[in-house]
Amino acid sequence: VLVERRFSDLDVLGHVNNVTYAVYMEEARYRLLDQAVRRGVSIPSQVVARQELDYLRPLTLKPEPVEVLAWVESVGRTSYVIDYEMRDDDGTPAARGRTVMVCFDAAKQRKAPMPEAYRAILESAAAGEGTAPWVPA
Amino acid sequence: VLVERRFSDLDVLGHVNNVTYAVYMEEARYRLLDQAVRRGVSIPSQVVARQELDYLRPLTLKPEPVEVLAWVESVGRTSYVIDYEMRDDDGTPAARGRTVMVCFDAAKQRKAPMPEAYRAILESAAAGEGTAPWVPA
Amino acid sequence: VLVERRFSDLDVLGHVNNVTYAVYMEEARYRLLDQAVRRGVSIPSQVVARQELDYLRPLTLKPEPVEVLAWVESVGRTSYVIDYEMRDDDGTPAARGRTVMVCFDAAKQRKAPMPEAYRAILESAAAGEGTAPWVPA
Amino acid sequence: VLVERRFSDLDVLGHVNNVTYAVYMEEARYRLLDQAVRRGVSIPSQVVARQELDYLRPLTLKPEPVEVLAWVESVGRTSYVIDYEMRDDDGTPAARGRTVMVCFDAAKQRKAPMPEAYRAILESAAAGEGTAPWVPA
Repeated sequence: VLVERRFSDLDVLGHVNNVTYAVYMEEARYRLLDQAVRRGVSIPSQVVARQELDYLRPLTLKPEPVEVLAWVESVGRTSYVIDYEMRDDDGTPAARGRTVMVCFDAAKQRKAPMPEAYRAILESAAAGEGTAPWVPA
Repeated sequence: VLVERRFSDLDVLGHVNNVTYAVYMEEARYRLLDQAVRRGVSIPSQVVARQELDYLRPLTLKPEPVEVLAWVESVGRTSYVIDYEMRDDDGTPAARGRTVMVCFDAAKQRKAPMPEAYRAILESAAAGEGTAPWVPA
Repeated sequence: VLVERRFSDLDVLGHVNNVTYAVYMEEARYRLLDQAVRRGVSIPSQVVARQELDYLRPLTLKPEPVEVLAWVESVGRTSYVIDYEMRDDDGTPAARGRTVMVCFDAAKQRKAPMPEAYRAILESAAAGEGTAPWVPA
Repeated sequence: VLVERRFSDLDVLGHVNNVTYAVYMEEARYRLLDQAVRRGVSIPSQVVARQELDYLRPLTLKPEPVEVLAWVESVGRTSYVIDYEMRDDDGTPAARGRTVMVCFDAAKQRKAPMPEAYRAILESAAAGEGTAPWVPA
């Protein structure tokens, strides 16, 4: 996923603010899910349960987008893990991230089993990537 | 200027939030000024003095970017005006905007005359556009 | 309305970014409408049609909030105008703003007459302020 | 630390967006550091090296602020750890977070030992909290 940098991503120090990296992850995750929607798979209700981010190198404002690799790392009964690697335009890793998503039954206010069709598309994504991250177009 | 939409641009109603349009304008303005920098013109210290926005149609989240036309509408002694038109991916105008920028002497805390080299590049931009807005690459 | 400043409101120059002023206006407007809700008045579907902002002085990051005066300037058949004055903690005006809101029928995708109960509360707000802006608690 | 909620903190689902929790953490961290500045301690150049967030319960928009407890969890030779607990207005924990900060020599582009005065104030903060988190005023 290529995510455009914006002037408003910068903070006082002239670097992409640390919070913005989570926006880039959200954007990559959204586009992953959007791909499933385009293949006719309905997206179950889910919430972000945990997020991790390791900052490796600062990002500055450039016309070139940030590359955000995002792939399904593992799939459980009610949850799954998306991993990310953000790269500057010269290919240097700038950050690595992880999101734990949990399927959630809003009516009962508790975790819910993952629908099979959704699990299938997540597992194919995880399997399909091999050693290379699954990069949605 | 093409500006990518982000999931985080949306508000509770599922539309690009009205404030985000000003982010799109800022982004287009930044790229205009960046063009001047790339041509070797130094950017004088300046501030946003006034901003106007007319909202014509809601924007939703799409893979296609928003097109932001931005051009120099007029150049004064200490200030200049940038006008914008934001278009959805089908070409429909979504909003029109205007920013008044004022050259500012931070040390003296008052308006400052515009440097000639900066005026020249602004005027060439204004003249060059004819009826078509000046769209930076 | 008192609106807290945040570190993330700042831009590269160390000032509250010009776009953030519109966030402050949105926040004040939201609290105005929330007051109507608390009085049992239902809020009609509406959109921001136009926004204006005049920047008078830069705002920096301080523990003290920004004071945002917001009042109903006028009420029309389908629209109304909210005016704002933002003040730094020493009372100095930092910006003035205006929003034109239009009642909107989402099903028909066109302007809609303002419900009488909503008009009444807007007009009482406009009348009640006298020379002093209506400052919601 | 009490952090005001804003309308713009919400995402399409009507909850405080997951990214915004990191803004709340940043705000609490900024105010911690600002306290050190007010005591005359100079803040060394530093970067966010890692961030973790566990989401426990959704936050909605309310007039009451979010309470962000923030305390120094540990202090190392070049780095230190700040932990956070975010609470809704009824005291329910909504999220827990952690930031690893690393002192950084920008000129040499590498980790730098922590200045003693800065270490002292961090350690006193860590020691002073006992079982209760250190809540800056």
